[in-house]
Parts: sequence; structure tokens; C-alpha cells
Amino acid sequence: MSDDDFFSVVHRQRACREFSERDVPDVLVAQVLDAAVFAPSAENHQPWDFVVVRDANLRARLGDLFKQAWIGGGREFSAPRVPPALLANVDAGMDGGFASAPVMIVVCADAERTLNVTVPSSIFPATQNLLLAATALGLGSALTTITTLFADDMRQLLGLPEHLQPVAVVPLGWPAKPLGPPRRDPFADHTHRDRYGTAW
Amino acid sequence: MSDDDFFSVVHRQRACREFSERDVPDVLVAQVLDAAVFAPSAENHQPWDFVVVRDANLRARLGDLFKQAWIGGGREFSAPRVPPALLANVDAGMDGGFASAPVMIVVCADAERTLNVTVPSSIFPATQNLLLAATALGLGSALTTITTLFADDMRQLLGLPEHLQPVAVVPLGWPAKPLGPPRRDPFADHTHRDRYGTAW
Repeated sequence: MSDDDFFSVVHRQRACREFSERDVPDVLVAQVLDAAVFAPSAENHQPWDFVVVRDANLRARLGDLFKQAWIGGGREFSAPRVPPALLANVDAGMDGGFASAPVMIVVCADAERTLNVTVPSSIFPATQNLLLAATALGLGSALTTITTLFADDMRQLLGLPEHLQPVAVVPLGWPAKPLGPPRRDPFADHTHRDRYGTAW
Repeated sequence: MSDDDFFSVVHRQRACREFSERDVPDVLVAQVLDAAVFAPSAENHQPWDFVVVRDANLRARLGDLFKQAWIGGGREFSAPRVPPALLANVDAGMDGGFASAPVMIVVCADAERTLNVTVPSSIFPATQNLLLAATALGLGSALTTITTLFADDMRQLLGLPEHLQPVAVVPLGWPAKPLGPPRRDPFADHTHRDRYGTAW
């Protein structure tokens, strides 16, 4: 099984929260976005828009939003709910780690091309394709949604029209250090056969 | 590039709405679900539950919910919004096509393991992994959310506790006929650089 094998990519996808200074060429960003748009969407309306943020000032401003959302409430909420090691990793990401990525992709939903109720099922599959494609290319990435608490700030920062709703921000770059394997419960722990509670 | 190559799988994923009678062995269902749980989730809480529905009676009842949701409003809403060929395909799926799949996977979110606000970003990436894994194995699948209009009926049918919210139903089986390539706009049509409206 090669590294490019589908299941190999799936099994090594993991959030990256610290990036090296090495740049990511546009040809790789293009491959990642091309993979994103092959995801399904309600009625095939493909209601996504992507803003590829490379400008250092804009990335710093997005980085400020991460800090603000985390320190202003996210951390307090998460701290009792996650293991200390994960919390330390997230701390590092929020406090400059994410902003150190040379590219930040802001994923938006266009309200003129879908309904509110179908935004999630039409946007997060594309976002997952994007994350997997990054993994396939050796890039680090992470799915973050916390800055969307500041949707209006993001609209102003990136000149987004009112009908575009920022849904996620994905930092993209080369991992500063190798990422370990993701930690997951076996699927069978949460799988049932025919009716809830029957071992699958 | 082999058929198992990550990007090859991504580029051929497409909704399947008509299935052959050939069964899907559990070993393949397991591979698909194992891929699903490697997706990211908020705080890594992995708030998914899967019900693998094989029972013919239960599948028929889920099929009734598809028909009911489609004929009772979904079709009227979608008809003016989608091309006739797609509408005909969806008609076929809703009117028995989806129910002809030997396996239906009901994807649920557990409110005790996540917040309402993080359900979408924690469940649809896993669902997308599931769909891609099916594609990698040659199986047909589709992302459907319309039956979740009848969440209470689904809870009763599958014995789901109140804290489980059905989020999607994925029919899984062997495609009755070869699936053509997915139709998508080029990503560049909806991608901007640094600010909205700047060609990427």
C-alpha cells in the first residue's frame, strides 16, 4: 500500500498546529481546492467560495481572531472537556501556530446558492476533501471553525459580501514536525446493527 | 495513477441512486466505517453513532420516509432549482432506488458528546470519509439528509435514544450501472486571493 493509497491518506490525516516557514506553491493549493469541489452538495449547487489568504498582514489579523476567540471564551469552555495534552496543542495553535501557516484558506457558504439548512451537508464534505488532499500531498492542515464567531470581522477583513458566510478556516503549510497517528475509538464502539444497542 | 490513488477516488465519487441486488459483505462495511471515524471532530470528541440497517423491513420503512419527504414537499421545492436530468435521477432514488440498497447507514450525532454548534463540523467530515471509502471499494453510496425531517420517526424505527440526532442516511450497495463522472464547476470560478473578488 503506497502513501498515495486512499486508505493510507485517511488513516494519517491529523490536525497540524505548527508550521515551518517553507512556502506552499500555488500548484499544490490548486490541487487541494480542486479536490474540495469534487465533494457532493445538496442539489449539486456547489455553494462554496474559497479565499486563499497569503498576505502576511491579513494572516496576522486572522491570527488575532483565533487568539481573541480562544482567550475570550473558547479555552475556558474547552479546558475541562479535553485531555491536557490536546489542550496544550490547541493553545499553541491558537497562540500563533495557525497564523504561522503560509496559506490560510477561508471556506465560505454562499446563501444565494443554497439554503441555511443545507449549508453544513454542502460545505463540510468539501472541507474534508480539502483536508484529505492536503494530507495526501504531505501538507499540514486543520479544520477550525472558532473564528466564525467573528463572521462580521472576517467579512470586513476579506471584503466578503453579506451573502457569504465564513464557515471554516484551514491553515495550510508544511508541518514543523512529524505528526503522530490520530487517536480514535474503534468504529465498533459506536456502531449498531438495525437498532440502537445491538452489537454491530 | 491507480484506482486506489487518493485523487482518483476523489474525482470519481458520485451519488448512486440505483443498486444491484448483490449483497455487501460486513468486511467492506467495516472498512467504510473505519474510514469514517478517522475524520476530525471538535475537541476530538468523535460524537458519531452509526446504525447499519440491513433488515429488509426497516429498509422499506426508511424507503417510505424518503418517499414521504420527497413527495410531501422536497420535490416541489427542488423541481425549479435543478436540471431535469438531475431531478429524474433524484426521483428514481427517492422512489425506491435508495431503498434498494442492501445496506443503509444512518449517521447520528450524540448530543451528549458534542454541542449543537459543533455537530455539522464534527459529523459531515466523517460522512464524507464514509462516502469516499465506499467509492474506493467500488461501492455506490449517496449523502442524503432529507429523511432527517422525520427525526422522531427514525428514532422510533431504530430505537434511538433522545440524545441521538439522525443527521444523514447513506444507502450503500453495488451500483446498478456504471456511474459517470461528477459534474463540477472549476474551483477557480469560486476562489479568490486575499480578498473577495480578486482572481485567485
